[in-house]
Amino acid sequence: MTETVISSPTREVVIGHDRAFTVIGERINPTGRKVLAAEMQAGDFSRVEADAVAQVEAGAHMLDVNAGIPLADEPAILAQTVKLVQSLVDVPLSIDSSIVAALEAGLAVYEGKALVNSVTGEEERLEQVLPLVAKHGAAVIAITNDETGISEDPDVRFEVARTIVNRAADHGIPAADVVVDPLVMPIGAMRGAGRQVFTLVRRLRDELGVNTTCGASNVSFGLPNRPGINAAFLAMAISNGLSSAITNPIEGEIRSAVMAADVLAGNDPDCAAWIASHRDPGGTQGAARGRRGGRRGRRGGSRDDG
Amino acid sequence: MTETVISSPTREVVIGHDRAFTVIGERINPTGRKVLAAEMQAGDFSRVEADAVAQVEAGAHMLDVNAGIPLADEPAILAQTVKLVQSLVDVPLSIDSSIVAALEAGLAVYEGKALVNSVTGEEERLEQVLPLVAKHGAAVIAITNDETGISEDPDVRFEVARTIVNRAADHGIPAADVVVDPLVMPIGAMRGAGRQVFTLVRRLRDELGVNTTCGASNVSFGLPNRPGINAAFLAMAISNGLSSAITNPIEGEIRSAVMAADVLAGNDPDCAAWIASHRDPGGTQGAARGRRGGRRGRRGGSRDDG
Repeated sequence: MTETVISSPTREVVIGHDRAFTVIGERINPTGRKVLAAEMQAGDFSRVEADAVAQVEAGAHMLDVNAGIPLADEPAILAQTVKLVQSLVDVPLSIDSSIVAALEAGLAVYEGKALVNSVTGEEERLEQVLPLVAKHGAAVIAITNDETGISEDPDVRFEVARTIVNRAADHGIPAADVVVDPLVMPIGAMRGAGRQVFTLVRRLRDELGVNTTCGASNVSFGLPNRPGINAAFLAMAISNGLSSAITNPIEGEIRSAVMAADVLAGNDPDCAAWIASHRDPGGTQGAARGRRGGRRGRRGGSRDDG
Repeated sequence: MTETVISSPTREVVIGHDRAFTVIGERINPTGRKVLAAEMQAGDFSRVEADAVAQVEAGAHMLDVNAGIPLADEPAILAQTVKLVQSLVDVPLSIDSSIVAALEAGLAVYEGKALVNSVTGEEERLEQVLPLVAKHGAAVIAITNDETGISEDPDVRFEVARTIVNRAADHGIPAADVVVDPLVMPIGAMRGAGRQVFTLVRRLRDELGVNTTCGASNVSFGLPNRPGINAAFLAMAISNGLSSAITNPIEGEIRSAVMAADVLAGNDPDCAAWIASHRDPGGTQGAARGRRGGRRGRRGGSRDDG
């Protein structure tokens, strides 16, 4: 089975179908978080620090880092954030921007093999982002839309994925380093969105042989009790072959569903992680492993959400 | 898609792949409940009454009724319990016994089209239970073991299911009235148990065209936080085609996972049930629909679990 290796200087995460599901913490992202955006622009990174530590403590295997602040110097802020987060926690990062210069700045300072978030099937993006990914020996998230937008037809999205995988190969990037995002639509707006994604994830695994990821929270947009929907979605998607997701590990219901799904998919040998997490509900094991230098490495204090 | 219709005098439940998942309440079962067994044998049915009402209030679409008490007159007690439960709640019943005379006694007093729980692939059981099912125009749960026991090989269990479906046809029972139980093993003892069942459920739907059910709680045997495992299991099984389960609807995590899975499988149109359940967390809507004659029909008081 396909394995995607992402690394920091001291840790390696392997995304794969026969492995525990990879949780990529979504919190370090000022999009839709006005307070965080204002703080980051003003040079106050205390909330970034707190979010980094809290997500790793909650069991995130990787962190997504985004600095998309309107009118700000995104390349500089993203690079600064990447360096800061790498000084605090040991987990590998996903470097997240829609601006190529920002991806470039983030990759330039990143230590290890990063996951670049993201490339699409748009011709211009393919030719800008893939050379960058190849140059840095990184892996990349492939989002299954192209110039024509996001198709509601999952077969079209599958073909976009195939195009990106083929183009990546032209640039020397193996399929194992392309993690496809099948694009999750809000189930409240589109009744077939769940079945569609489950089928697509299964095809991406079986026919294209790639790992998959998604922004899981989108599925519950507009509905009450979003963590309840997100948790069931992840369990269902995992049983159809989803191998990672960008989500919120701090949400207990989501963490529990992912861990239980690992048990049920046979990817938690001897149920060891499940049993340990119930022996140690504070999750300090994950924290001890994931935080750089243990508790001493923590800089920021804990804060409420921005 | 296959539809299995089960009924009481006033209500019909349709088990099917493109319908909301059917929850069959598991609580009215003295096996492993010593206090309940002693009470039922002594003629005290107050806990049965409370369990019937509470499960329907919690959203059970059907109730399983079992009177398996060692050395007791099981046929008489099962018939009495079936009559009592039908006087209290409107939902259809699954009549559950390993003793053919008890199934016969239960069916004799049942009003409506019952689900008989169960027949196996054992020759003697097939020839005793199937004529009874045919005579009463009932549906039947087919458990996928035979004289050789429960095979660990899911392909063998699939063939047992096929044998039962074929034999049922010989007795005039259509495949739509055979609900197959693929047999769920404890995941703590058998790492592949989950994947195995998911694959088997999918094959039973796609190749044999039957509905499926299972005793879902067995999967978490021996593990901490069993509702957490059971909830994820049900969501995953639903996304692979499981259409009903005998489980505990009173457990909030299980109820929530099943409802969310219905949303994500596209079987809760407009997310109406999900939204209503969060508007009305007490679940009184279900109670008003499911309890015979509304609140006046309630006889027993609420009690702690036996």
